[in-house]
Amino acid sequence: MKFSVLTLFPEMIHQTLSYSILGRAIGNGVLTVDAVDIRDFAGNKHNRVDDYPYGGGCGMVMQPQPVFDAFSSLSIRPGTKVIYLTPQGKPFCQKMAEEFAKEEELVLLCGHYEGIDERVLEEIVTDEVSLGDFVLTGGELAAIAVIDAVGRLVPGVLGKEESAEEESFAGNALEYPQYTRPPVFHGKEVPPVLLSGHHQKIAQWRRMQSLIRTYHKRPDLYAKIELTAKEKQNMEEYIKDLHQTKEEE
Amino acid sequence: MKFSVLTLFPEMIHQTLSYSILGRAIGNGVLTVDAVDIRDFAGNKHNRVDDYPYGGGCGMVMQPQPVFDAFSSLSIRPGTKVIYLTPQGKPFCQKMAEEFAKEEELVLLCGHYEGIDERVLEEIVTDEVSLGDFVLTGGELAAIAVIDAVGRLVPGVLGKEESAEEESFAGNALEYPQYTRPPVFHGKEVPPVLLSGHHQKIAQWRRMQSLIRTYHKRPDLYAKIELTAKEKQNMEEYIKDLHQTKEEE
Repeated sequence: MKFSVLTLFPEMIHQTLSYSILGRAIGNGVLTVDAVDIRDFAGNKHNRVDDYPYGGGCGMVMQPQPVFDAFSSLSIRPGTKVIYLTPQGKPFCQKMAEEFAKEEELVLLCGHYEGIDERVLEEIVTDEVSLGDFVLTGGELAAIAVIDAVGRLVPGVLGKEESAEEESFAGNALEYPQYTRPPVFHGKEVPPVLLSGHHQKIAQWRRMQSLIRTYHKRPDLYAKIELTAKEKQNMEEYIKDLHQTKEEE
Repeated sequence: MKFSVLTLFPEMIHQTLSYSILGRAIGNGVLTVDAVDIRDFAGNKHNRVDDYPYGGGCGMVMQPQPVFDAFSSLSIRPGTKVIYLTPQGKPFCQKMAEEFAKEEELVLLCGHYEGIDERVLEEIVTDEVSLGDFVLTGGELAAIAVIDAVGRLVPGVLGKEESAEEESFAGNALEYPQYTRPPVFHGKEVPPVLLSGHHQKIAQWRRMQSLIRTYHKRPDLYAKIELTAKEKQNMEEYIKDLHQTKEEE
């Protein structure tokens, strides 16, 4: 899969993606990341790509022409998604990552300053995506996060030992707690069920831990989980016990 | 303000934060970023910090001892927040960034593989934070995004020209569209009101654009906006016109 990034900081894109699993996948050629420097298309000797906003106000706005010319320099197929990273976009989520991972190529446009002239956005952008309801210095970190989340879903990117993590949002439940060696750390033992070798009990315990965590930490996700009759009963008992314990305290 | 990052990829942290506004603030000493390599605390000759999960399952889990030892190597004040970046955490948002920006120091713990042994998390972590409902290769990108969003709120980090961007989530409304030179791009003119020089009309137009955008793109945020009586009336008219136009089509 190929990612083309339109950015003022191409080196930041390449360096940040040179580590760990993504770095390996790019090294292997399973993923290709092409970072195009918008400043190369400034068309003036000072390499300026921004100017004051019409109507006044703080900050600078990226001009439409350099962005358009940088985009036009790409050889992409018709129908390729062009994603503008902006807090105004649709919030990024795992389901969106899965959709994007089906594409052969994605173009990611990174803004800076007070944003990009609206006219070029109307002309080239197909999807506006937000990493979340917070303000970043530029679109680069959001683009890198999208490339990471999407890239690791591409077949061949994750090794055998790394393959289970997608489960994090499968069925909306958060992951259960994990334990590894030593069996006792600072006086705390690993939950005995995990050492029992009883696969079914382990699976049940983990599922219950997932449900309890999601119930407490993310009631919004918990409401979306499809519980079996047995799970529903277990959770009702857990919640009842919880209230009783609170009353006794 | 100081950020201490516990990570398997310290160079990734330093490199990614060396650009743009954050890079300048770190260069100036307004922000300090200290990245501690957890692998330095492996305590074995192979520098391994992960092991198989108790109870079985795919993936590897980071062991508690190296994480604890890396944490203990920091000289932090009592009460310093220790943030674990995990999809199980509380979703990061601008309000949280504002709270974190009041701290003198933050510790950020980055997991990899299937996560970190739960016992060390219970012992050292004060806050679990999620960048969003998606799965990343590791906590580093999330930590970097938090440092960026928090760091830019620290006085002295943003220059005069960069200061207005915080408005993005003030009052829950998305930002209005921006325009800069040239006045005509690919046949599209800048909205005439922005060239009028009439400050009040410009402010009204921009506010209305913000409201319209938020109404269409983020009904969840729109519901939280406190509208003046006049704004409410304008939006009701806009929505009425919208439905009429749709019916006529």
